[in-house]
This record gives sequence, C-alpha cells and structure tokens, in this order.
Amino acid sequence: MSHNTFGHLFRVTTFGESHGPAIGCVVDGCPPLIPLEEGDIQAFLEKRRPGTSRFTTQRQEADQVKILSGVFHDEKTKRQVTTGTPIALLIENTDQRAKDYDAIKDTYRPGHADFTYDLKYGIRDHRGGGRSSARETAMRVAAGAIARKIIAPVRIRGALVQMGPHSIDRANWDWDAVVKNPFFCPDAKAAAFFETYLDSIRKAGSSTGAVIEIVAENVPPGWGAPIYGKLDAELASAVMSINAVKGVEIGDGFAAAELSGEANADEIRRGNDGAPKFLSNHAGGILGGISTGQPIVARFAVKPTSSILTPRRTIDRFGAETEIVTKGRHDPCVGIRAVPVGEAMVACVLADQFLRHRAQAGESAKWPFAPHL
Amino acid sequence: MSHNTFGHLFRVTTFGESHGPAIGCVVDGCPPLIPLEEGDIQAFLEKRRPGTSRFTTQRQEADQVKILSGVFHDEKTKRQVTTGTPIALLIENTDQRAKDYDAIKDTYRPGHADFTYDLKYGIRDHRGGGRSSARETAMRVAAGAIARKIIAPVRIRGALVQMGPHSIDRANWDWDAVVKNPFFCPDAKAAAFFETYLDSIRKAGSSTGAVIEIVAENVPPGWGAPIYGKLDAELASAVMSINAVKGVEIGDGFAAAELSGEANADEIRRGNDGAPKFLSNHAGGILGGISTGQPIVARFAVKPTSSILTPRRTIDRFGAETEIVTKGRHDPCVGIRAVPVGEAMVACVLADQFLRHRAQAGESAKWPFAPHL
Amino acid sequence: MSHNTFGHLFRVTTFGESHGPAIGCVVDGCPPLIPLEEGDIQAFLEKRRPGTSRFTTQRQEADQVKILSGVFHDEKTKRQVTTGTPIALLIENTDQRAKDYDAIKDTYRPGHADFTYDLKYGIRDHRGGGRSSARETAMRVAAGAIARKIIAPVRIRGALVQMGPHSIDRANWDWDAVVKNPFFCPDAKAAAFFETYLDSIRKAGSSTGAVIEIVAENVPPGWGAPIYGKLDAELASAVMSINAVKGVEIGDGFAAAELSGEANADEIRRGNDGAPKFLSNHAGGILGGISTGQPIVARFAVKPTSSILTPRRTIDRFGAETEIVTKGRHDPCVGIRAVPVGEAMVACVLADQFLRHRAQAGESAKWPFAPHL
Amino acid sequence: MSHNTFGHLFRVTTFGESHGPAIGCVVDGCPPLIPLEEGDIQAFLEKRRPGTSRFTTQRQEADQVKILSGVFHDEKTKRQVTTGTPIALLIENTDQRAKDYDAIKDTYRPGHADFTYDLKYGIRDHRGGGRSSARETAMRVAAGAIARKIIAPVRIRGALVQMGPHSIDRANWDWDAVVKNPFFCPDAKAAAFFETYLDSIRKAGSSTGAVIEIVAENVPPGWGAPIYGKLDAELASAVMSINAVKGVEIGDGFAAAELSGEANADEIRRGNDGAPKFLSNHAGGILGGISTGQPIVARFAVKPTSSILTPRRTIDRFGAETEIVTKGRHDPCVGIRAVPVGEAMVACVLADQFLRHRAQAGESAKWPFAPHL
Repeated sequence: MSHNTFGHLFRVTTFGESHGPAIGCVVDGCPPLIPLEEGDIQAFLEKRRPGTSRFTTQRQEADQVKILSGVFHDEKTKRQVTTGTPIALLIENTDQRAKDYDAIKDTYRPGHADFTYDLKYGIRDHRGGGRSSARETAMRVAAGAIARKIIAPVRIRGALVQMGPHSIDRANWDWDAVVKNPFFCPDAKAAAFFETYLDSIRKAGSSTGAVIEIVAENVPPGWGAPIYGKLDAELASAVMSINAVKGVEIGDGFAAAELSGEANADEIRRGNDGAPKFLSNHAGGILGGISTGQPIVARFAVKPTSSILTPRRTIDRFGAETEIVTKGRHDPCVGIRAVPVGEAMVACVLADQFLRHRAQAGESAKWPFAPHL
Repeated sequence: MSHNTFGHLFRVTTFGESHGPAIGCVVDGCPPLIPLEEGDIQAFLEKRRPGTSRFTTQRQEADQVKILSGVFHDEKTKRQVTTGTPIALLIENTDQRAKDYDAIKDTYRPGHADFTYDLKYGIRDHRGGGRSSARETAMRVAAGAIARKIIAPVRIRGALVQMGPHSIDRANWDWDAVVKNPFFCPDAKAAAFFETYLDSIRKAGSSTGAVIEIVAENVPPGWGAPIYGKLDAELASAVMSINAVKGVEIGDGFAAAELSGEANADEIRRGNDGAPKFLSNHAGGILGGISTGQPIVARFAVKPTSSILTPRRTIDRFGAETEIVTKGRHDPCVGIRAVPVGEAMVACVLADQFLRHRAQAGESAKWPFAPHL
Repeated sequence: MSHNTFGHLFRVTTFGESHGPAIGCVVDGCPPLIPLEEGDIQAFLEKRRPGTSRFTTQRQEADQVKILSGVFHDEKTKRQVTTGTPIALLIENTDQRAKDYDAIKDTYRPGHADFTYDLKYGIRDHRGGGRSSARETAMRVAAGAIARKIIAPVRIRGALVQMGPHSIDRANWDWDAVVKNPFFCPDAKAAAFFETYLDSIRKAGSSTGAVIEIVAENVPPGWGAPIYGKLDAELASAVMSINAVKGVEIGDGFAAAELSGEANADEIRRGNDGAPKFLSNHAGGILGGISTGQPIVARFAVKPTSSILTPRRTIDRFGAETEIVTKGRHDPCVGIRAVPVGEAMVACVLADQFLRHRAQAGESAKWPFAPHL
Repeated sequence: MSHNTFGHLFRVTTFGESHGPAIGCVVDGCPPLIPLEEGDIQAFLEKRRPGTSRFTTQRQEADQVKILSGVFHDEKTKRQVTTGTPIALLIENTDQRAKDYDAIKDTYRPGHADFTYDLKYGIRDHRGGGRSSARETAMRVAAGAIARKIIAPVRIRGALVQMGPHSIDRANWDWDAVVKNPFFCPDAKAAAFFETYLDSIRKAGSSTGAVIEIVAENVPPGWGAPIYGKLDAELASAVMSINAVKGVEIGDGFAAAELSGEANADEIRRGNDGAPKFLSNHAGGILGGISTGQPIVARFAVKPTSSILTPRRTIDRFGAETEIVTKGRHDPCVGIRAVPVGEAMVACVLADQFLRHRAQAGESAKWPFAPHL
C-alpha cells in the first residue's frame, strides 16, 4: 500500500476530490476473461450512495459509473469481459455546492483532516473536504465489486453491530434483516431503536459513532502470507484506511486478551467430509496471518462525524482563535455507509491475496482448494 | 508491505526460523552518517530477550547481534556511522532444543500457525514454530533501534495496560514504573497484582492475553499520507503483523464509536508559543491519516499463547483426530514481550513516513518542523 | 515498475486503449504547490500528436488533455497549483475508425503484440492494437510534463540521430535545428535527406527504424541509488518500455566495449568554480548508478513499424496459415514520435530519483546541490 | 526494483561490502517444495568465482555459500526443499586486503563509483569499492541458481561475443566451446585469439570491455506484462544494474533500427506440432513486452575496468587535483565474469515474470503452457 494505491497484484489507484469534476480509479492486475458490465459495479454503488434515506447526507449524487478501459467483447461467450489490462472507472460529480464551504475555507474543523492536510501540504481543497472526503470511498466500493468477481465463491457481507453506545443483540442476528433497514443492521429490533435514536441525533445537529462487522465465508485455507503480508495485517490496514475508522479487530479481537489459552483454542475435529472442522472461531478465520478455511471476521470502529452544528473552539489558518459550526449536508452517523465500504475493502484484500497465493503456491492454489490431507 | 519485507523507504526484510542456524534482517534505505554501533541495537534486544524473568520463556538466548554491512568509520566524527547502503544484522540461534518438538511434528496446535503453514505450503518447519515463531520479532526490535536513530527527537514508549481481564488504573500511570517490573506495567500496584496472577497461570500450564499501549511523542505534524498510506493504516498493519495480535486501536479506538461528535472533537487553541494547542487527544495524534503534532497513541490486543499444558482436541496432518499437550518452554503471557516489539514497529513506521514526507514535501519537512502558520 | 504503473515516489499509472472512449493516467506523489495548468501539459502533447506532418499517422486526434484532480487555486500566488494529491489526466479518443481493423481481427501481424496479448490473456482488443497501441505514450508525455516541473532546473532534450541505416553527422549538431524539421533531427542537412528518404518508404507502404538520443543537463550529482535502483538501470527500463524499442545505451554504450580503460576514463580536474570538472563524458553522466553532475546521455533504438503494406506470412487465431497486409493509418517511422516520449520517460525517472534522493539524503539534497567538497 | 531489492514476486535483497565480514542475500517469494541444497548454488558460484584463471582478479575467495533459512527436510521425498519462507544466503569474505586501498582512500578513480558514492552519501567504504564492488554480483549468481529451479524447463546460457573491438565469428558458435575456455566464448578460434590479446592488456596494466549475449530457451509464450512490466524492460533494468554495463539490446537491438518493416517481420507458419513456428527471431523472443515462445536473446556491453595501472588525472575528496594509479587485484576484462552474472539476472527476471503470469492468468499459465489455439 502506498499513498493512493493499494494492493500488490490486484492494485487499486483512486483519484479525485469531493468537488472536482470527477472521481475515479484504475484497477490493475485483474485476471482476463471475467464478465464485467457497468451494472455489476453500479449495484454495489447503490448501497453506498448518499441521499437514499434521511440518515445519510442529503447530497444527491447519481454516482453513475463509467468503464473507460480494460473490457472487450468476447466472441466465445458473447459477453463483455475483462482483458487483463487496467480497468479505469469514472464517476462525475454532479451535485456540488462549493459555496457551502466558503465559511470554513480558512478554519479547521476539530477532529477533521482539514488541519493536517494544510500542515502537510501547505494547501488544501476545502470544498467538501477535498481529497479527504468520504466521497473517495465510492471508488473503493467500485473496485470491490470487481474484486468479488475474481473470488466469486467467496461471500462477503457486512453489518452495523453498534451505534453510539448501543450494541445489537447477537441472538437476533439475521442476515436477511440487513437489507430491510437503512442501517445495514442484522437485528431488526435494534434497527427500530436506531431509527428513533439517530433521528434525535440528526435533529440536534450532532453525530454518533458505530461499529461494523464484516464476514467473509468460503475463503479457502492458505490465503495470506507471513510475516509482513499477513492476511489480518492487510485487512487491518485496508479497513483502518477508511475515513473515520479508529479501531480494527479480527475474530475475538480485544476480547481475546481476556481469555485463557484453553478458552481461546479453536479445537479441531475431522468433519464428515474428511476436511478439518473447527469447534469454535475465536481466531476469526486467520492463524499466523493465513486463512484457516473458517469464516473471516473483521470488526471496525467508526468515530462520529466531525462536521456538527454545535459550535466548537478552533483556530484558523492564520493562527487566530475562533469557533466553528459546520452547516452543509453531513451524515449523522458516517458508520452506516461504511458498511459497503468495509465489505469492498475486505473483497479487495482477499482478491489480492488469492492472486499472490496462486503465484507462489501454484497448482495447490487451484479452486476449489484441495488440501493435501 | 509484502511477505517478509515491510516499509517503503525505510525497508526491513527479515529471515530465519526458530531452530535454524540464525535469524537476521536487512535494513535498507537508512540515511547515511547516522552513528550506529552494535551496542545501540543490543540495548533494545535486551528488553525483549527471553529468559530474563520467570514470566517469559526459559529459552536461554544471548541474542547477540552482529552488524554485517552498511556501516563504516567516519573520519570526521571518529565514529562508526551508516553509509546509506543496506545494514544486515545477524543473531545466531544457540539454545535450540529441536527434540522438544518431535511430539508435535505431525499434529496441529489449536490456535497456532502450525495448521495454516502446512495447508499453504504443504510443508512446515515444526521446530519451535519455524518461521511463525515469535523469535522473528527480535529482528523487528533490532530494526526499530535503527529507526529510532533516524527520528531521534521522537520518543516512543510502550506499556502493558491489561493482563487477562485485569486493566491497570490509569490514574496510577507512571512511565518510570515501566522498567521496574517484569511486565512493562506503568501502574506499580497493578504490577504487583500481575505477579501473583501470572504465577498462578504459569503454574497451571495455562496462558493469558494482554493489551499493550504505545505512545510516540514529539512527532511533528504532517507525517502520513492519504489515502492508502495513512499513518494509522500503516500502524495498524505493522502492529497486527506481530504474532498473536488480534486488535488495534488509535486514540480512543473502539470507545470513539460510543461518543457524540461534540465529545469526540479535539478542540484547538493557540498555545503560548503560537503553535496550535489541542485541548484533548481523542484522535490519538492522527487526523485523515496524517499526524497532528499531538502524541500518537496506539493500542493492541494480544491473545493468550496457544502452547499450553491442558490437552486440546485436534487433528494430525494425516487427518486423524487426536489430542495435543504442548510441553517445551513457552511464555505464559506472550503480550509482555510484545511491548518492545510494538515500540519497534511504531518506530519503523514513523521512520518510513518521515522519509516519505521529506521526499514529497521537501523543505517544509525539515526538522524541527516549521508549520507555515 | 509493475504492469501499468511506473516510478516509486513519482508514480504514473496509465490506462486506456487505442479505440476505447478515452486514455488517461494518474500521477501520484507529486510535491504540492507546483504551478500546473492544462496548457503546461498540452504544449508537450503537441510535439507528439499524430497527424502534424505527412511523416506520421494520419489519425486526427486533438489530444486535448483535461486535469480531473490534484490541483487547486492557491490564494497566495493566485495560480493553480498541485495539492500533493493524485493528479488524474484524461484524453478522449475522438478519431476512431475501428472498422479499419476488422480485416486483422483474427490474424496476427508479424512483429506485433497482437500475437502475444492473445496468448497471454486469451483475448485482445484488436482495434488499433488496443492497449499495445502507441497511443498509450501520450500519457507518458503528459506525465513527463509534470515531472519536468518538479525538477525544473534540469533541461531534457531529445533528438533523432539515425533513420534506417543513415546516421546524422554529429559535427552538424544544432539543438535549434530540432524544432525546425518534422524529424526532431539536430542535423539540418541530414533532415533534408530524411525527408526524401522517408517519403520513398512511406509511398512504398514500408517502414524504417531509428535511433533517438536524449540529453539531460543540470542534473546534480547524487541522484540514483545502488544497487537495483541505479539511475541507468531505471532509465534503461523506462526507455525499453516504450513501444518498439529494442536497445538502450548510456554514454558511449556499446562503443565502450571497444575501449581501453585509459580511453574510457573520464579524467577530473578542479573547475574555476571549485567544483569537479570532467574532461570527457564517456560515462554519460552516471557512475555506479548515480549521477556525476555531467549531462546524462541515453540513446535508444526503435524498430520499424510492423504495420506495412507488403504481404507477410502469418497465422490466424485458429492456427491456420494466411497472409496479412496492414492498411489503416500508420507511422512510416515510429521512431520520430518516440523523441518526445523518450524525453518524458527520462523526465519521469529523474523526478522519481530526485524525490528518492531527497528522502534518503535530506539536507544534502537541497537544490541547488551543494557538494560537501 | 528499488535500491537493494529486485523483483516483484521473486524478490532478491542483497547486502554486504567487498571488505566487510560477509556478503549475503535474502530470496523471498520462492515457491515451496523445490529441492534445494547448498551444492545447487555453489555450482553456479564456481563459474563466477575470482582467481580461477590469470584473466580474472587474483583475489582468492572460496565463495562458500551457506543457506541460513527457508529450507527443511521433506519427509515424503527425503530431500531438503524450500518451505516458501525467505531463503537467506551468506558468503564470508576471507581474502581481504584492505591495506591495498589505503592509497586511494581520499582519491577518486576516474570512471569509478568512488566519486558518486561520496557525493551522494558524504561517506564511502573505500576498501575494494565497498558496496559498489563487483563482489556483490556473487549474490546475484546465487539467487539466479534458485530462480533456475523455479522455471526448470527453461535453459539459460550466456557467452562472451566480443572483447574490446574484436567480435567472434557467429558461424563458429558452439555452446560446448563456452566451458572450454576461460572467457565463456562460444567461438573456439576467437577464444584462442582472446588469450593472447588479453594477456597483452593484462601485462600492460590496462583493461578492455566486452559484449555478452544471454539466450533463454523454452520460455513459454505469455510471460511479461504490458505496459511498464514488460519483459524486455525488466531484462534491460536487470542487466543494466550489473556493474560496468553501459548498453542492453533485445534481439536485433540497435541493428533493428536499420531494417525495413519487411525485413524485421518474423513471419509465422504452423509447425508440424500445430504450434506457431516463427521463420526468424529479429524480436529476440519478445513482442509487446511479452514472450513469444521463441528463444529470448539479450545482449549487453561491459565497459573496461576503471582500475588500471596507467596514471589518470583526478581530484581528491578535498578538491585538490592529483593523479591516480590503481594497484591491487583487478580484472583486466570484467566482462568475462559478467557472463554468469548476466545469466543469473535473466533467470531472476524470468522466474519473477513466471510467478506474476501465474498469478494473473492462472490455469492458462500451467506448465507446460497450453496455448488456446
């Protein structure tokens, strides 16, 4: 990972500012002959798109993606497929209100990248956060849609499991519920509560944090690479690179620190199909940085949006003390839209690790994975 | 980061197995003319060295580091300095008891990389965990000692803040206490308790987890790089790549998810020296992936050692069900020795980001940092 | 370098096919606060643009570049400047005649990437060579225009020094002549001859090769990095990656193999300004992979265009033997337009090495370079 | 490629100075289960070892390689095999005569990296050239020995085809002759002449250049990657990174510039086995940066050794004018020992490209390559 590119063999480079003419990305290293249409990507963008409920920013962006390169008509299958060359994607920015940001042009929002961009570069595009805007995450979702196709048997799903101090009841977990509420919440009862809760926060001009969980199923054992290319290390980096994320866990995460060695051990039996069968999954599907074949479980904490209506003390770029209030169109809980983004980052990391594993381990990496047992 | 190398400009490549002839690393990209002797590195290795108390593995390794390249006598300063060429470090393995591991040669320890290495590669060096051994972390500490010299004004310190379910009392925090107990614990009272607590675990042949906190002071604003080279993303990856780590937090971390936008905002005033002064540090010194100038605070969770005396159900490499008990010399709380390792990883990430910032931002990156305010 | 990205700190990623909707690139790692307008880039694109004389392809492309991101208005200087974030550039393809290529849809041009793309990927975009088209080099020129601004005191110029078997007379070398003929030829007399020569080749539907020389002046000593980041190694890679290039030389190049050690030695004296003064430049400005301060001289050979009117024996993608004639709009000497492309690649490599040197060597790398002598 | 590492998936990092305690390398990314013993590597080191004839430096180094990591006993095959973890190799320096270099401690040899290392870093290890010594190439040869095993069906051979101004007669080419003379010359008659020729140069304390040709057979089509990961671009970089190399060619190289499109076209017919059969190989086995299946042919020019007995004018590190004569033990034609080094670099590039191709193209990359025709 480096600056605006992530991944080693499945490489994604993003560009664009919140209020520039467009945002986009280049996906390099994609295997050839994979069916790919704009619709495949658009479906995932819809999940992240702003303005779909009153609980996200009211910016109205169609987020219509265009594929500029890297695909061609395949005569054999009569479908549009990838060619192995770089896939460039573009989304034009249409609903820009740069004027909204004039008031904060010279002032730093506490808890926002305003301050650090200016100190690092000596200049920043203040309109909508410029490059630091969550708008950039649309391209992550787009790249993730391609990544999913490379590792098609893998199923990656995300859910909001905590909003502010309120956790869901895991006993109520129902993946089908996730698509039925505007929070991607797997606990229908909690979702009903979140509706009231977030309304009050929204009306107060405040904001709140959230915790998101991503689960990847059907990942074969053997993906990931010791020592510094560990699957969990790369998941941590990928997820921590999402705007506003402040913590990442794999499996039991911080709770594992409280366990004894006995309690933490995921014991193994022989399954009916002869394959190893784990009796628990404290490890979150990863041991020594390599996938075990169990579901991969990653969790991350999203801080509350820093753009709020309550005045906060700050300084301006000339060093003078002042106060700031952020009007404009902001997410009261930016964690909600982080769900599809988190899924996408996990998909990208897994696609990259799949290719890396196939490179080094070759035949043994063929799909489906045939362990040597 | 990739496989056995981490860093972009300050690059560390490690090699070696627990019971091979030696472990070592190559540090590439170090600036020239930095004074460096073996003693500078040895001092940090002593902190991590096994066998220094009854609370760590009883393996007796001198961990004597040799510098094989990259240094030369400087006529001007009459000191040995770096030359800008790769610095190779070597530590010979001396206290090997490969026989100890014969019993688990064909069997997988639940919660251990035994299983995944074998499934990935079709072969593993079972002696002491081979490449997956925590022994590899000695080279991280060695590289970290060099990294510290590059960013000398930065002060990086670590502490154990939780053992098993028992947290320290932060009101008792005293950095001086850290070196006075075998746990790197900043709360002397908690340390006394940990002694009894860990003794009971050790005697039972069990193990426990821990939480470690690393604080880096005097980091100037501007280090780090959006979007995928974020300072926090790279810290997360670096720390998660340490053996047995299952979670990482920056600043308030998971607790930030519970906060309102008002509570989470680190308000800014003008300090007496004219520089920005933050009234709190929920952000842990990083905004938008770039350092703010405040102390950088990272925390990570270490799971309990998987090598325990209590029998656990598992399978062998032929697929047969069996039980396993791990004798040999193991850390009852591997989190303790993770403290110097965590410090080293933070040092390496910061040195790398310093060089990257200096490359892109040039003059504005001169030390000490002169903000344009 | 890797697939569709080159450079380490000054990183260029290109995308797009000859007959897709657009070509483009993302330039990452550019320092902030560098004045940059579309016109700065357009000026260099004009030099490479097709259809400017009867000696290049008659495809009519405006090659109008758009900057999509990475720049902003600087209040202090009242100019548009770089912000340190990725600069995306886009050129729409307008003069496409995909139909021209239907005849060769299933057949491989001898000496062309048609064959290898198909065998590698199992698919290729046959329209105008798809990704393998020289059209991609427009983005190299665009990136090179940005690179030049980063290392502004460095002057990079290219010239055609041989066409087919005919070399120029170096005694006639005049940089001013280069812009006065359609061949970028520094020998006005040779240029006059090339006009007649290439006309005959063009009318015969044939093609010819060329040799190009690039000279970079004012490069300070110290750029480049042993052992595998050598300046000459990276120049070789950058230049060899240009379509149709089959050979690269630095300084005396292959002629150096014929010299004795005495003849090859560039002796050094003390100049009037106290700085080292070389008495010759057989080395082409590079020793041990690092710049000496002398002009950097690189030369490369371009093979003749493979698309010609004379029938050639080949096979089709079904394995059947056939003949091929390439109609359409092709350069009779693709080496001509390789001149601005070669300049651009040298500029990109130098900008990247400048940033890398500044990262590692810091203060000593300040501009202008102050040797420690 | 970057500083002291080269390769992307098959990655080689070297370290060590001519007169330090040892030189070594770390080979990362090697597939597991490949039989590997020290003897496999030693065999290639013998070809490059100094002091084997009067035509190379008289330094006496055993160049005995030790494998420090990355291999283990495989129970199934009863052989030592790679484990997929990093393979560290070490060669101790034994015949050091640091005193020999005291005379040039403060003076720069014209045509040598002495000057540029000092200006870049402000310090250099003057003993035997330090890091810039050709001694580093021993580790390239060692890494190349491992690379060859990964792509075992590929046959890579090198030959000296020109010494000073004297080319061999290609009509006499006999690969068997190469091992029968101290010059790796495939023309026995030329070799006899070179013996007399080089003796006179050696006795005069002078030196001469050479041209080396490397041929790789049995490379399947499809290796290499457009646009910046082209096989020829990476070969150019790899070969140009060898000490003293000043030019690189693929296939016809610079001679291709003289050809017409008709003459340069490698026409294709259907072979008796149904596979494509080329009627010539002007391209040197590479089109569009991707292998065609024909032999890959690379050629490179080596300048004469800069360490000679004839006095040359130079300056010292304090800026004073002086003369220099280099005594000590030097190769009169460093191009000779560049033959095994060139072979090794080609092997490393091919192994890396094989893994990269396998990653992206998967099943279609299985060995032997099954084209879709």
